[in-house]
Amino acid sequence: MEPVLSRDPRTGEVRAEMGLQADTAAVDAAVRAAYATVDLLADRSKRSALLRAAADGVEARAAELIAAADAETALGVPRLTGELARVAYQFRFFADIVDDGAFLGVVVDELDPSAVPPRPALRRWKVPVGAVAVFAASNFPFAFSVPGGDTASALAAGCPVVVKAHPDHPQTSELAAATIRQAAEKAGLPADVLVLIHGYQAGSDLVRHPLISAVGFTGSIPGGRALFDLAAARPVPIPFYGELGSLNPVVVTERAAQARPDEIAAGLVASYTLGQGQFCTKPGLVLVPAGPAGDELTGKAAAAAAAAAPGALLDGRMREHFLAGFAARATAPGVRTLAEAGAAPADGTPQAVRPGLLEVDAADLTGGLLEECFGPVTVLVRYRDTADAEAVLARMAGNLTATLHAEPGESGAAAWLARLSRFAGRVIFGGWPTGVAVAPAMTHGGPYPATTSPTTSVGGAAIERWLRPVTYQTVPPELLPAELAHPGS
Amino acid sequence: MEPVLSRDPRTGEVRAEMGLQADTAAVDAAVRAAYATVDLLADRSKRSALLRAAADGVEARAAELIAAADAETALGVPRLTGELARVAYQFRFFADIVDDGAFLGVVVDELDPSAVPPRPALRRWKVPVGAVAVFAASNFPFAFSVPGGDTASALAAGCPVVVKAHPDHPQTSELAAATIRQAAEKAGLPADVLVLIHGYQAGSDLVRHPLISAVGFTGSIPGGRALFDLAAARPVPIPFYGELGSLNPVVVTERAAQARPDEIAAGLVASYTLGQGQFCTKPGLVLVPAGPAGDELTGKAAAAAAAAAPGALLDGRMREHFLAGFAARATAPGVRTLAEAGAAPADGTPQAVRPGLLEVDAADLTGGLLEECFGPVTVLVRYRDTADAEAVLARMAGNLTATLHAEPGESGAAAWLARLSRFAGRVIFGGWPTGVAVAPAMTHGGPYPATTSPTTSVGGAAIERWLRPVTYQTVPPELLPAELAHPGS
Repeated sequence: MEPVLSRDPRTGEVRAEMGLQADTAAVDAAVRAAYATVDLLADRSKRSALLRAAADGVEARAAELIAAADAETALGVPRLTGELARVAYQFRFFADIVDDGAFLGVVVDELDPSAVPPRPALRRWKVPVGAVAVFAASNFPFAFSVPGGDTASALAAGCPVVVKAHPDHPQTSELAAATIRQAAEKAGLPADVLVLIHGYQAGSDLVRHPLISAVGFTGSIPGGRALFDLAAARPVPIPFYGELGSLNPVVVTERAAQARPDEIAAGLVASYTLGQGQFCTKPGLVLVPAGPAGDELTGKAAAAAAAAAPGALLDGRMREHFLAGFAARATAPGVRTLAEAGAAPADGTPQAVRPGLLEVDAADLTGGLLEECFGPVTVLVRYRDTADAEAVLARMAGNLTATLHAEPGESGAAAWLARLSRFAGRVIFGGWPTGVAVAPAMTHGGPYPATTSPTTSVGGAAIERWLRPVTYQTVPPELLPAELAHPGS
Repeated sequence: MEPVLSRDPRTGEVRAEMGLQADTAAVDAAVRAAYATVDLLADRSKRSALLRAAADGVEARAAELIAAADAETALGVPRLTGELARVAYQFRFFADIVDDGAFLGVVVDELDPSAVPPRPALRRWKVPVGAVAVFAASNFPFAFSVPGGDTASALAAGCPVVVKAHPDHPQTSELAAATIRQAAEKAGLPADVLVLIHGYQAGSDLVRHPLISAVGFTGSIPGGRALFDLAAARPVPIPFYGELGSLNPVVVTERAAQARPDEIAAGLVASYTLGQGQFCTKPGLVLVPAGPAGDELTGKAAAAAAAAAPGALLDGRMREHFLAGFAARATAPGVRTLAEAGAAPADGTPQAVRPGLLEVDAADLTGGLLEECFGPVTVLVRYRDTADAEAVLARMAGNLTATLHAEPGESGAAAWLARLSRFAGRVIFGGWPTGVAVAPAMTHGGPYPATTSPTTSVGGAAIERWLRPVTYQTVPPELLPAELAHPGS
């Protein structure tokens, strides 16, 4: 088998070898080990203890985890410190959800002879689907990887997890997996409630394994769609919860451009260059009005983009894709380059790139500009009137987010929001889409390709992906699980 | 195009021609007509008015609907009268759900700067997914067809519906569609909130249509899987909520066989011959203990099966499949025939068949006996001990239901129920699986192939299949939909 290599994206050099990629037999062993823990995970108090111990564990090992993640991703210590704090918060958030029990969805129907047909006594709740697979993402080595939202929500649901590490951060993944496995043992559970594997082929084997009941994935459209297709083609198809890609359009009204050109320009550039633009919620297309107010906003954005700091992307392949993607968009008919993306080598960061900014008239918008370009670039689309903007929005595929900048009391704002909600899972007013709160009311998902299924991978409702309903009919209370025999107690 | 034919299954004769099957252009026109009503269906008060008018409508036209359905399905006036009453009840049940609004799943998160990352003000609810396709089932010309649960729950969710009629009851389908379309107009909505199409190829065209956002299906494993595969292979994949097949195993303990041989034998035969065994919840495999108590139960079941009335199946193809399926099972190694299924022509019903009953020792159970045989037959599997029964249960695929007959206070009953809940969506104690209540706590769904997705197609939660979440972030209340601006009011 191929070795697993840890690389430094700032230089492109190999840092360490982390063992071997998993072959089919190793994937089978990993899945069986995790699957064997299903019954033990049924104990909710142990599950919440595991999640709290995992939070404590990542905090205790924060220095080590952050150092490894920075060395493997170049995302920087401040950002990674925040991301790890979010992970600890998220584990505790799901521990509270497990203890609360509302996610079990208990519904009690008493006998009702007047119903048509007559209704027997029914009690419904939700049970874990079984062992699940989680695919780690490149761009969040903590929050969407081994200790991330899919893992936390699946363990909260009672599902053991086999995580396929992302090749951009194998060392970070190993450290995080060891931390969670230790937390499991502290909570009186087997370490194998989480098992880590590495390797491209291992991912396919994992999705096809008969003891895997569902998959969580965050990544690209081509990779995610290939795995989605494998999941759907199994003899027993399983749900594939994939977050694949999103353009995250922003609409700036004429009045907003007039009122807040500095604030909007600065906010936009900060958002699309955050983490070197490697966010699934990066605003990738911005509808800016034609005319003087839009011109002023555009000029300020160009200046801010030119002043933005260069940095390394997550790996060499992404760097190539970004530079090629920028070049292809910049040379499309009618596109004007406001800030030129390109290589920007510096001491210690020979692989750094500079952010780019493009502009095009709505009438000239070609299909390629409607596709996500992962990395620090966005496209300002200048529209003349509402119909012009509507013609662009009508071409939108599904999105994780859509954002409106309008002024207080502006007529038409509600109509814009309704329009944006047709193709997005989260609609933002007056802010920016990067930054996804871990909260009960969050939706991080949207129509395809934003996600493959209309669910969320962030926030309290993420747990619903790993559950299925079971109804007990005319079962005496003494034979029911405690939560159903005595609901609410 | 091929004509649409209405046939009499009692004789196999053609009753009437009902126009032509829809070609690709006709399917496109049907979908566009339904899709054009999405915005109008957003009005919840009109939706509940539509559902109540549909209930009134099917009641007003009951005689006509029942006569057509009996002529096309041979299910008999008493059963069809009950089925239509259920349909009216179900429309009103969903009207109440629409008015209540809890299905919108409104969640409000206030600003919380202490969260990690800080939490902005968020409001989440669920919106309709868009226009949806519904495939009618052969065996319930009302309750799982044009006016059935998928249609009622989708309209309740706010999704216009294109129904693909089942070829076994085109005339009934046309009458039911006209009734619902009239109800829509009475409620101030366009008739096209429901559009009916006919034809095999039309079904494939419907699933592939880009303006269809989800599919509901009730039918066979081969047909359902083919459509599931089409839905997954689309450029934009869509959820396919299919109910495909279920064996519905029953476990009878030694003590239950000793205590209630007459009741269990009579109940079993009544359940598996109900509607000529053409229920997705028909008990198709019964674990009966070896030894004298089980022998007595088996003997009584054989006598009841021999005395059960013959009747016509839904169509000639099903009749052939049933007779061939019975013969294949009866001649499998170790299988004993307790009641011989076969043709039983009678005056007015030359296509009638007689129910069958088979028996086999658990050790001799071959794979073919674990597959559903649609029609009036079940297999008694004699087990020597718990391990013997467990070996059979370990071979179960996903099921809609699983049933336990045990005695009060019997040790081990809870363990049996837990075991059965691993592969079934509804677990029944001391009853029979046929008959599915329309209730908030119902689950009519289970692991594959029972359903393609862990949801329910019956009961209040069926509405969830047609919704997707949307979160509004930092949106001023005056710009929010009323349900989000003033939750609970």
